[in-house]
Amino acid sequence: MKQKVYTLKAVDSKESYPGLVYNFGAGPAMLPREVMQLARAEFLDWHGAGMSVMEMSHRSDEFMSIATQTEADFREILAIPDNYKVLFSQGGASSQFAMVPLNLLAGKKTADYFHTGLWSGKALKEAERFCKVNVITNEDNDALLSVPEAETWSLDPDAAYVYYTDNETISGVRFPAIPDVADVPLVTDMTSNLLSKPFDVSRYGVIFAGAQKNIGPPGLVIVIIREDLLGHAPKHIPSMYNYTIQAKSNSMYNTPPTYSWYISGLVLKWIKGQGGLEAMERMSHARSDSLYQAIDKSDFYNNLVDPKYRSRMNVPFTLAGDSLNEKFASEAKDHGLVALEGHRSVGGMRASMYNAMPEEGVDTLISFMQEFERTNG
Amino acid sequence: MKQKVYTLKAVDSKESYPGLVYNFGAGPAMLPREVMQLARAEFLDWHGAGMSVMEMSHRSDEFMSIATQTEADFREILAIPDNYKVLFSQGGASSQFAMVPLNLLAGKKTADYFHTGLWSGKALKEAERFCKVNVITNEDNDALLSVPEAETWSLDPDAAYVYYTDNETISGVRFPAIPDVADVPLVTDMTSNLLSKPFDVSRYGVIFAGAQKNIGPPGLVIVIIREDLLGHAPKHIPSMYNYTIQAKSNSMYNTPPTYSWYISGLVLKWIKGQGGLEAMERMSHARSDSLYQAIDKSDFYNNLVDPKYRSRMNVPFTLAGDSLNEKFASEAKDHGLVALEGHRSVGGMRASMYNAMPEEGVDTLISFMQEFERTNG
Repeated sequence: MKQKVYTLKAVDSKESYPGLVYNFGAGPAMLPREVMQLARAEFLDWHGAGMSVMEMSHRSDEFMSIATQTEADFREILAIPDNYKVLFSQGGASSQFAMVPLNLLAGKKTADYFHTGLWSGKALKEAERFCKVNVITNEDNDALLSVPEAETWSLDPDAAYVYYTDNETISGVRFPAIPDVADVPLVTDMTSNLLSKPFDVSRYGVIFAGAQKNIGPPGLVIVIIREDLLGHAPKHIPSMYNYTIQAKSNSMYNTPPTYSWYISGLVLKWIKGQGGLEAMERMSHARSDSLYQAIDKSDFYNNLVDPKYRSRMNVPFTLAGDSLNEKFASEAKDHGLVALEGHRSVGGMRASMYNAMPEEGVDTLISFMQEFERTNG
Repeated sequence: MKQKVYTLKAVDSKESYPGLVYNFGAGPAMLPREVMQLARAEFLDWHGAGMSVMEMSHRSDEFMSIATQTEADFREILAIPDNYKVLFSQGGASSQFAMVPLNLLAGKKTADYFHTGLWSGKALKEAERFCKVNVITNEDNDALLSVPEAETWSLDPDAAYVYYTDNETISGVRFPAIPDVADVPLVTDMTSNLLSKPFDVSRYGVIFAGAQKNIGPPGLVIVIIREDLLGHAPKHIPSMYNYTIQAKSNSMYNTPPTYSWYISGLVLKWIKGQGGLEAMERMSHARSDSLYQAIDKSDFYNNLVDPKYRSRMNVPFTLAGDSLNEKFASEAKDHGLVALEGHRSVGGMRASMYNAMPEEGVDTLISFMQEFERTNG
């Protein structure tokens, strides 16, 4: 059998793909073009195995090499300490909303939840099926456009853990810093911003992220869990929801989502090639700074979030009149700028810009916005 | 944007892919070559959308058209009655092992489980976390190589449902007919043989199947559930494990495994093009009949399963001596016949032959077996 091994090629110019668009959707999201090219090249026959990655046994030497390398790259990029397990799991972040209380309550009756947007709201609703939830939020903040300041927090001393959503995709709000909760295990949903910045993993008990924004295709959720938090789940929870069972089987208690795992591995290689999380952070600042500046200097566009809490991933904005929304989205699409409609719960527009969004995508959006303002302002 | 729409092409000859192998693994498994070619052609840019299917929002018009068409084709192929919901779910069959009792007990305390192999064994172990399990099995059948005859069944009159595994992949045993359980809801795991034969869906309460054998890539599990069984789940179960919530949201309570859904849709089109389930059944009979005949007429190879219960998907066999196993597997691989090692719990060899295994793959295997017997017999 002929051994064909391709490598990531530098092909980030839109010119070579006249048909491709800039996808500003909140997720699933754009993947790096080099990754997609490489995946296409080895689609039918991975490294001479004679089959596609999606046809391989998850227990084959070939797939095990992919799985092992992906975890090693993930650990290296995030500098994950040895006392943390990494799980490549299924069911998305919404499964984690139940798995966190089911595994972490360990006999306790309460958990602290920061409520700063739709996703933390969903997570705490799910937790209420299993325990008492102590909600920490800004009372005068119906629209959830800010994060409560530390001096206002009323944490429960008996809480099993403290939970927050690092970045809220709907209103475009992020925590300005890792909350200091002393010795209580800190849990975070980083679905929308994991791998977009370096941070200290050792501050956390559990970090989880659905893959479909910065990491890879849908169907995979990655969990980072401190080992001392394993082993406390009650026996009557589903096996697939038991972190300990998943950790003991190295995420192969059953057939994992192999193809999403593989593509995520290619994305990790791409991140390393770009310069790691420092580079991802620099790029995310460049993208979001440009767009916020364009919005702030215009009277036509508006973003309501306090600059202190503004997301670097999701930038919601309104136009001078809601009646222009449809026209804006439709004309943007003609310029190859798609999925700019805001979430149905808040309306307006939203530009989601994850790791794979090239700077020229944002430049093209800003030029279009300026042109649209001139024509409709 | 240029509209590029490819179609399934008839390219089932191995000659055009000199490197490709015949994968006899139990799953993930081979996918039809025409499907893989089509998926490769539209990998970067699906139907002129300017992006890959795995980059699309699951709520976009493009993906919704894929999702809707896939469900329609699935319903058509299986002739699913209108009073059944079809769910495209995550977490594999192992999640269903918990979801079935959590959703179907509805206040009852017992369920009947046929134990005919490793997978029904796993399912009943999981169910024991949630209810009393009444096990129906052949007492004198440690190796689980047969299915209990109807006159020996001792069903519980108060059981919430009756559960069985239609095809057991490890020992290669299948139920010879749909068990008659009167009005009690019948639940079956068809992970390894759904879409390999026509059958009467209306005989069932719940049918589920992980995709990675006959349907598509890993990461997707399809559930067919009779509507009157919805709405009985207790409130304290995880939302993602609630069939009713999944049904109400049309399998989009959260981001579904979009790419596996899409590839499965292409496989369904391929099945229709081949002549539907009648054709799949004919092909599965042709493949398994040839291989069982080759085994039965040889003194070198042996299959222990009563012909009445022999699987049409998974054919385990032993060689004249266990010391030859490694040599057999290694030489088979040199002939492009891979993953023939039997499951570690039973040893020997196993040929899994799902829908996408071409007849010439089986012919090549049989020729190789005859040659190996001549040299080593």
